[in-house]
Amino acid sequence: MTTPRITIVEVGPRDGLQNERAMVPTPDKIELINRLSAAHLPVIEVSAFVSPRWVPQMADAAEVFAGITRAPGIRYTALVPNLAGLDRAVAAGVTEIAVFAASTETFSRKNINQSIDESLATYAQVCGRAHAAGLRVRGYLSTAFGCPFEGAVAPDRVADVAARLADLGVFEVAISDTIGIAHPGQVPRVLEAVLTRVPVHQLALHFHDGGCPYAPGAAGNLATDDLIYMLDGLGLETGVSLAGVTGASTFIASKIDHRLPSRYAQAVFAKELAGM
Amino acid sequence: MTTPRITIVEVGPRDGLQNERAMVPTPDKIELINRLSAAHLPVIEVSAFVSPRWVPQMADAAEVFAGITRAPGIRYTALVPNLAGLDRAVAAGVTEIAVFAASTETFSRKNINQSIDESLATYAQVCGRAHAAGLRVRGYLSTAFGCPFEGAVAPDRVADVAARLADLGVFEVAISDTIGIAHPGQVPRVLEAVLTRVPVHQLALHFHDGGCPYAPGAAGNLATDDLIYMLDGLGLETGVSLAGVTGASTFIASKIDHRLPSRYAQAVFAKELAGM
Repeated sequence: MTTPRITIVEVGPRDGLQNERAMVPTPDKIELINRLSAAHLPVIEVSAFVSPRWVPQMADAAEVFAGITRAPGIRYTALVPNLAGLDRAVAAGVTEIAVFAASTETFSRKNINQSIDESLATYAQVCGRAHAAGLRVRGYLSTAFGCPFEGAVAPDRVADVAARLADLGVFEVAISDTIGIAHPGQVPRVLEAVLTRVPVHQLALHFHDGGCPYAPGAAGNLATDDLIYMLDGLGLETGVSLAGVTGASTFIASKIDHRLPSRYAQAVFAKELAGM
Repeated sequence: MTTPRITIVEVGPRDGLQNERAMVPTPDKIELINRLSAAHLPVIEVSAFVSPRWVPQMADAAEVFAGITRAPGIRYTALVPNLAGLDRAVAAGVTEIAVFAASTETFSRKNINQSIDESLATYAQVCGRAHAAGLRVRGYLSTAFGCPFEGAVAPDRVADVAARLADLGVFEVAISDTIGIAHPGQVPRVLEAVLTRVPVHQLALHFHDGGCPYAPGAAGNLATDDLIYMLDGLGLETGVSLAGVTGASTFIASKIDHRLPSRYAQAVFAKELAGM
């Protein structure tokens, strides 16, 4: 039996930092990403080429891409909402982008001010131009396990939008728990529905650890060190250095105004404080 | 097939509040426990009859027991370290107590200033007098998944101390992750070892969600609402009202000086703030 292997897509520099009140200086973002590279994370979502008025935390996307040291074998990706963002990404030397659709109409309109149909039409253009330019495109599918506005989401609806994303030629659809509401009983039910429409090698999972970016006081992404601690314990290979990730977490924690939610980092920090 | 049923032992009023910097007033503790009763938690660990110099947060154990409304069918328990504590518990009308041993010598000495052998000798006396007085005794076995001082703990050692606790006549041994370090790959390995010595109906599990009470800055117990959210999602019956637990959490959060670690409560709170 071969050991199952997990590919971790590290989204902290984008999905983490975009929700911070503090504006993290560009050199600190670059340092964070270089540390994540040193921890052997195979894919790092570096930034987003979105409107700076919409997400001011990501205004320095081009500068961050210009400043990082790209390690061989690691993929550096960026979120792109439209053709203008794609052009900026290409100019910054990005070779892999991600688009993001929603499973629910209300979230789609509140998040990107487009209906699901409109967003997929936009992404069809983005994918066409990206593929012509030799870029790979990843697709996020948000609110797949529940919507902050519509509540429960039928697995068939998730499967349908996932299939429409796959039809655009994305190499992977990340079934995403935008508000951190998925539980272990629900994940297999949603995946069973999606797998009737999208093959397993084209699926990824994106989990939050509670909270919604559009609700104040909410928590955010699953901590990568907690994830790796569990996967290591389960004997699932990731190739990522847990100590390296914790080092990167500790670094960025000193640049923002609150403690990170990682349980693992907290235990390590507490142990060091206690001199153990 | 019958639906699996989980019995939740709510330890917030004791294991939660004993770690708070804030001294929670006795009436607030009573209100918390009454709310937990209203949420149908089947077992509530109310307080600890320990030295007030050692744990000042639990100095009002007798007053709390005198003030709570005992709902029919709910068991109200207390931690008891020695014969003096047992006498105080009996005087307060407690009918079920818990003793606490460690899997590792260093933790035993640091936590209760006794070796494992010494503590078991003490608990033999406590169990003898408690059983003679008609009380039931529960046993905690701490550091079963790792020790902040000794590191990894061999499952056979855990099984050995668990068996010695069971030999004292405790009705249940709670295999406890004192520092929140257990992962899903480790739990079956420890339980397999313990099950060779203690029958399954005498086992319970006590998990933390990161952190150690003897390390500053550490997190603490697993949030009951997060646990119930997951168990509900898995179709495992608890009989407990999630909304009731969240109500109790929200109440006590207003009495301490920090936000609770519950992901579920945070999501509900965030949703309310956002007016959803």
